[in-house]
Order: sequence, then structure tokens, then C-alpha cells
Amino acid sequence: LDRYNRVTEDVVRELKKICGPRGVLTGGSKSLHIYSHDQVAGKTYARAPEVVVKPSTNEEIVSIIKLANRHRIPVTPRGAGSGLSGGAVPIYGGICLSVERMNRILEIDRENLMAVVEPGVVTNKLDAALREYGLFFAGYPMSEEFCFIAGNVAENAGGGKAIKYGVTGKYITGLELVTPLGDLLQLGGKRFKDVTGYDLVSLMIGSEGTLGVFTKIFVRLLPRPLHRITLLALFEDMETAIALVPIIMTQGRLIPTSIEFMDQLCLHATCKQLKETIAYEPAGALLLFEVDGKDENQVRRDATTIQQLCEEHLAQKVYVAETEEESERFWRIRKQVPWVLKRINPAQSLEDIVVPIARIPSMMETLMQIGEKYDVLIPCFGHAGDGNLHATPLKNPEHSGEHWERILPEILGDIYRAAAEAGGTISGEHGIGHKRKGYMELVMSKTQIEMMRSIKRVLDPNNIMNPGKIFD
Amino acid sequence: LDRYNRVTEDVVRELKKICGPRGVLTGGSKSLHIYSHDQVAGKTYARAPEVVVKPSTNEEIVSIIKLANRHRIPVTPRGAGSGLSGGAVPIYGGICLSVERMNRILEIDRENLMAVVEPGVVTNKLDAALREYGLFFAGYPMSEEFCFIAGNVAENAGGGKAIKYGVTGKYITGLELVTPLGDLLQLGGKRFKDVTGYDLVSLMIGSEGTLGVFTKIFVRLLPRPLHRITLLALFEDMETAIALVPIIMTQGRLIPTSIEFMDQLCLHATCKQLKETIAYEPAGALLLFEVDGKDENQVRRDATTIQQLCEEHLAQKVYVAETEEESERFWRIRKQVPWVLKRINPAQSLEDIVVPIARIPSMMETLMQIGEKYDVLIPCFGHAGDGNLHATPLKNPEHSGEHWERILPEILGDIYRAAAEAGGTISGEHGIGHKRKGYMELVMSKTQIEMMRSIKRVLDPNNIMNPGKIFD
Repeated sequence: LDRYNRVTEDVVRELKKICGPRGVLTGGSKSLHIYSHDQVAGKTYARAPEVVVKPSTNEEIVSIIKLANRHRIPVTPRGAGSGLSGGAVPIYGGICLSVERMNRILEIDRENLMAVVEPGVVTNKLDAALREYGLFFAGYPMSEEFCFIAGNVAENAGGGKAIKYGVTGKYITGLELVTPLGDLLQLGGKRFKDVTGYDLVSLMIGSEGTLGVFTKIFVRLLPRPLHRITLLALFEDMETAIALVPIIMTQGRLIPTSIEFMDQLCLHATCKQLKETIAYEPAGALLLFEVDGKDENQVRRDATTIQQLCEEHLAQKVYVAETEEESERFWRIRKQVPWVLKRINPAQSLEDIVVPIARIPSMMETLMQIGEKYDVLIPCFGHAGDGNLHATPLKNPEHSGEHWERILPEILGDIYRAAAEAGGTISGEHGIGHKRKGYMELVMSKTQIEMMRSIKRVLDPNNIMNPGKIFD
Repeated sequence: LDRYNRVTEDVVRELKKICGPRGVLTGGSKSLHIYSHDQVAGKTYARAPEVVVKPSTNEEIVSIIKLANRHRIPVTPRGAGSGLSGGAVPIYGGICLSVERMNRILEIDRENLMAVVEPGVVTNKLDAALREYGLFFAGYPMSEEFCFIAGNVAENAGGGKAIKYGVTGKYITGLELVTPLGDLLQLGGKRFKDVTGYDLVSLMIGSEGTLGVFTKIFVRLLPRPLHRITLLALFEDMETAIALVPIIMTQGRLIPTSIEFMDQLCLHATCKQLKETIAYEPAGALLLFEVDGKDENQVRRDATTIQQLCEEHLAQKVYVAETEEESERFWRIRKQVPWVLKRINPAQSLEDIVVPIARIPSMMETLMQIGEKYDVLIPCFGHAGDGNLHATPLKNPEHSGEHWERILPEILGDIYRAAAEAGGTISGEHGIGHKRKGYMELVMSKTQIEMMRSIKRVLDPNNIMNPGKIFD
């Protein structure tokens, strides 16, 4: 900690000269509080910055980063603060660099199927703007209504459509960024292929703000699908439900847009909360499918394939959304899960493990055992199509707060170890941040961590760029 | 050069102890010659190794790399030698590490839609093995009949289907490798999402053998498409042809599997060679489309959309392949181009520039001007769908060999500069190797090159792993 210097009044003055007085928030201001946390539950992970800066140009960012290097002050880049691993939390204080003012869609280039945007563009806003062009951005995090695209890139966000379309990174062909040493750099650009040296664009994607501040993002676009059908299938248990996933892809020969799942607890709690009329009571698991495409008949045939395979493989009931409203209603059940779980108990830990899809049922079994061991509930939902499980240990209301704080790291250790043993890992789309950094050795070798560290050291020799994230 | 030590008799003895006597080829052997070059034309780029080793286990590779570090001997990993940038050429001599013996498909995991293979598996062999499972590997380099999958990964190979399916890297979810310091390491695995720290898998993909030797490759599989239709369209000129590419994707709302192109010279020379009966004589450009999918009607409708759009937008003639034989016949025209150009003049330089798709016509115009400036022909063919142009300067038979050697770097400089000005780069799928390393500064900043170099230095401190590739 004494590696870093404090933000002095002189530094604040310099920052005001760079960003203008309205671009700098200091300690006196109450509004610093919202920059002290992201969406991770619990105060343990929060920490207020000493100062917040809101640059509006590349030049301002370059000046801020150079200043931070000169004074050895940590800089934590921040998007919408919708992260789930503490990535945007300035754990060593210092400067919070919010990109909220840099929120313009710079270009929609229809001929080249590319958009160029500033880092603070809300993901949904980009998608809305693309509608009239018949195009779309296939990245689709569940927080799309408020998250920023730079955050999607920094965490390599996944979401509900990743099984068909892939995660955010697949659509990022170029990045302009300010490096940890304050150089402005463009990597890649409007091109669909590029093997000119190491793939630094991919190195930046998912680097959680530790390797630079993104200033411009090049997004590859696809033709917008015209039709979609959503199906909701209920099953007696998770094993029966998950067994269907590879069957649909191999026997059905189709990769649906979405295969979401939730276990009994998530299903029942959410349906009750939403006063759902679907026959969820006898069900132990839910699968939510979506298929989309440009051709109505094709989409309909894909939906029929899924419906038939569900029925052949012991679904209790399959509902097919005939209208947009019904689709939205089905998705609401899925999207409400994290909020319903928060209402059940805000003392919780939303996890993000990944396992090979065939290992989902045994992983669910293990989660059940871990829950029993610690006498807590671990409801589970997420993206069945890519094995990404949001297991969410909830504090037992009968336990004390101290007990919860003590057992949570043990619970997480058990969950992560089990994921690793199944050939999986501890984060599929939320990132490591400072929430999970202590567990990295459970899923990867010291050599691999040391490789990452050595890359960080060489690109950020003063360790000022979002320090204390991913690893110490 | 004096940084490295020679391969002494002692070293050969050690290597024989590691790999067995039959796993080591030495200078006396004629067969060393084939390890001195890849598919790059011209002797300038060739160099024989001092010794070739053919390990068959990870442990052998670890021992070889540790030995190379101890003795400071460069190691050049080698796949099938089908590369097009000199990546597998041991330009400082030393050890050529051929993975040809490690050629087993270790696992086809149908439930998890994954294959695990050794580095020396021929790409087509994997695809053939997947057929009975109804699965396929969407990577599809043009050299699939002989290239190795490790080479595809090392160069991040593209090919004819990249516009729909993406390049090789998109399907690689994990790599086992021996690092430049001789550590055996597994990055990623059988998982579709992973944001656990920096994306080292992507850093390895396309790193051209400079960051490690791949020993195991985890390949994501897709349901195998059941139907395909190939269309061949002829146009008066390239501008009219290329204008169709964004129209098909936006107006037609479809991403075809392939959109290949060739200019007049390639078209006429190849059709003449193949004694083609299509009406190519009045045509100045060709587009080759393919659509595929699981549903025959859908594929047919996509083909009709393309056909109609071609006809509406001034195609002289559109041929639709009704049978597999006709499809193969159309593809033969495209696949023969590089061989026909080699026959026209083996003194040539097959290039691999990428530009944003809308810039293809102006780039073609520029290539024409560059050709006129140096009095050489620069035929051009490649992947229109992703702006990847195989411009191929041919030596003018009236020029002397020395003249050609002198002007070629100038021609390449002009081509690369023009690609960079158009927002493109110098390699889309063939890589930099030692053929293009002198031109890197034309398309990227010194800061970016220095970032790559610093990563290389920190991961390979003795610079023994394929030195002299990508950068010096």
C-alpha cells in the first residue's frame, strides 16, 4: 500500500486543469460513494476512490495516466459499475477514471458491417441505433440496459446468446486505448481477419482494466435476425433437463440462440414472485430456449425440433411463445432470478463457474452437497448451452454475519475446486476482479499465473493500472 | 547470430538419448532439405536446420526445450511445412522440432462437442473422423488436405469459410504446450467461456511458434451442415462484383459460408488451364458463393436470394451447382488459382493483405497502379467476404532475376502501405514469419511492436523459440 502516493491537493489541481473543474469529483462530494462499489454484494469488497475524474477526450486520458505514473497513484477505469467481480472498485484508493462522458456512437459503417463507439456507450443504445440499419451487435449481457460496452469488453461479457453468437470478444475487431504508460494506441481496426503479430486485441479483451483504458471500440455487426421463438420447458429434475443440451446440438443438429436453465429453487421462487401461471409446481428444473433467424419458416422448424426433442426426452411440459409478449414473459422469469435471490437474502455470493456441458448434472449434485455441508442454500441458474452456472450461495438467516463471512471463502473454495476437477474454471463471464483473485491457484498452475503477472509487469511497470485485480 | 551456439556432436547425442536414434535427423542426411523451407517461393527464405528432432511425447519436448535453453540453441517448431510466411524455416539453424509423429486424435467427445488432438493431425483427417458423429471442425484452410492442425493454430489460419464460421482460433478453447522455458502447461480446456485472467489461449493462437510448442489442442465442434449449394457468378469488372458483398449481408440478411473472388487474370488463366466451359471470356471478375445448413429448403432459399441479388446487380451470368460434382468443379477453379499462378511464373510473392470489405475495389485499383509502376502483373484472388486479398506480384519474364530481387521489396512496401492506408493490414491468415517482419512498421506503431517484443522477451528470455520471426 505504501507503494502508492495519496491524491494531494496539488494532484487534484492538476486533474482539474486536465478535465476541467466539472470533470473532477473530490472527497467532499457525497457522490463519490457510488464509485466505491459495483454490483457485488457485501461491503467487504467496496472502497471509495480519493478522486473521480470524468475525461471527455483521449488527450485528457493520456494526461491523467501520465500524471498517475509520475505521482505513482493507482488508476481504476470504470464503466457503468454493473460488474460482478469488483473489477471497477479502486481497492487502493487513488483515481477512479469514469468513461461516462465518452458515450458517443462515432460511426455505423453499413458497407463494412462495423460500428465504432466510445467506451461509455450503453450496450442497448448501440443495439437500438443499429435497428434501422437491419444490423445488430450479437453481444448480449443480461445487464444490457445499463452496462457500458467498454465494460463488456473489459470483462469479455457473455450473456444469454453466447451459445450461438459467442461472447463479446468475438465481435471486437479493434481497440483504441491508452496504455498503462500513457501511450495512445490503436490495435486492429475494421478488419475481419488479422494475424499481423500477436493478438493484442484479444489480450486486452477480458483484461479487466489492468492493461489500459479503452477509448474507442470497433464492433463487428451481423444482419439482424427478423424472427425469434422462445420455448420454455419444464422437467422433473436437472439431470433430465441438462441431458437434452447435447441431444439438441447433435441429434437436432442445431445451435439454439439461447439455452438457459434454472433449478427448482430459482424456478419456484421466481414464478411465485411473478405470480406465474405456468405449471411450475411439479417441476424441478426449467430450460429456456430461443431460436432466431431471418426466415420465419426456418425459425419455426427449429422451434419444432426443440419442442419434439424435449417431449421425447421427458419434458413435463413445453410452452412455445407465440408472440413477442409471451417471449418477453418467459425471459422475465429468467432475468428476474438474480433479483429474486437478492430479495431472499442480499447476503449472498453470485458465482460464475464454467464446466464442460456434460458435467453440469454432476456439478449440480456437488453444489447440493456443498450446501448441505455448510447448511446454506446454493440455488443455481445460468447458461446451460455453454456450461456457465451462476451458483449463488445464500447466507442462512439463522447464521450470524461473522459465521457467514467465515464460511463463505470455504464454500467458494469448495465450489471452485469442484469446477476445476470437472475440467472447468471459476469465471465464465464476470471476471476475477479482486473478488476471486485469491482462488486463481485452484484452477490454474503457478506457471500460468506467473505468465500473466509477467505480462502485466512489462506493460505496466509502475503497476498503476487497476492494481490488485486478477492477481496481486 | 553469435548469440546462439552450434549443434555439436554432444548435443546430437543428447537429442538421440531423448528421442531415440530414429527420432533425430542430422546434417549427413539428405532429408534435412525438406525442413529448410515452407511453401514460400524463392530460395532467399530457405535455411536448413542443423538437426531435425521428431519427438513423440510431451516429456521429450520438455527435454529438448530445456536442452536448447542450456546450450542456447534456437528451436523452430514445424508442422506440415505448408506455411506461406517462412514461419517454420529455421533461419538461425539449430533444431527443427517436427511434430509429425504426434498425430493422434486423442478424443472425440460428442457430449461436450469437443475434440482433443495432438499437434500433427492433418486437418482433413480430423474432419473425416468427425463425419460419423454428425459433427465438424469449422476451420477450413485451403491446404486442409496436408496442413497440420498445430500449424493452423500457430498461424490462426483462415480459409474459405471464415466469413460465416470465423477463423481457426474461434474454435480453439484450450491448448497444452511446452513454454519457451520448458514448462508443460495447459491453458483453457473443454469450456466454451473463460475469463479467468488474461486470454493466454488467444495470445498463443497466431503466435507463429514463437511462444511455445503446442502438444495438445482442444477443438470446439459444431453440428455438421447437411446441405450446401455453391454458386459461381461472373461480372464485367471487380467493382461490380465486390459491391455485392455488403448488399448480400445487409439487404439479403445472410452471411454466406463463402464469398471467394478472383480477378480477370486469375479467372481466365485458371479456366483456360482447366478447360472450363463456363462463359468466362467476357468476364472481368468472378465471385464464388457457398451456403450451407442443416435444412435443405433453407439452403435453397439462401442460394436463391444470392442468385437474385447477383442478377439484380449486374452479374453477367450466375451458375448454381446442382450436384456435389458441380460444387467441386466450381471450387476447383478457385483452389487451382495459386497453382496456375505458380505455373505462369514461380518467381512470385503470394501476399495476404486485408482491407475493410468496402475498400476492396479501390485496393484493386491501387494494385493495378503498382503493377504498372514496376511493370509487373499483380493478379489477385481470395476471400471477398472478409476483405482478405491474395495479391500475387509475378516476376516479369523480361526482367532479370536481380532486378526482381531488387524491386520486390519495393512492390511489397507499396502494397502494404496502401493496405494500411485503407485501414487494413499485411496479413490476414498467412502470418508474418520472416518474410514480412521488415514491414511491420508500415502497419503498426513502434509502441505496438515494442509491446509484442516485450511479451516475447519476458516469456522467452533466452530467445530460443523460433527466433527471428514476426520481429527481430
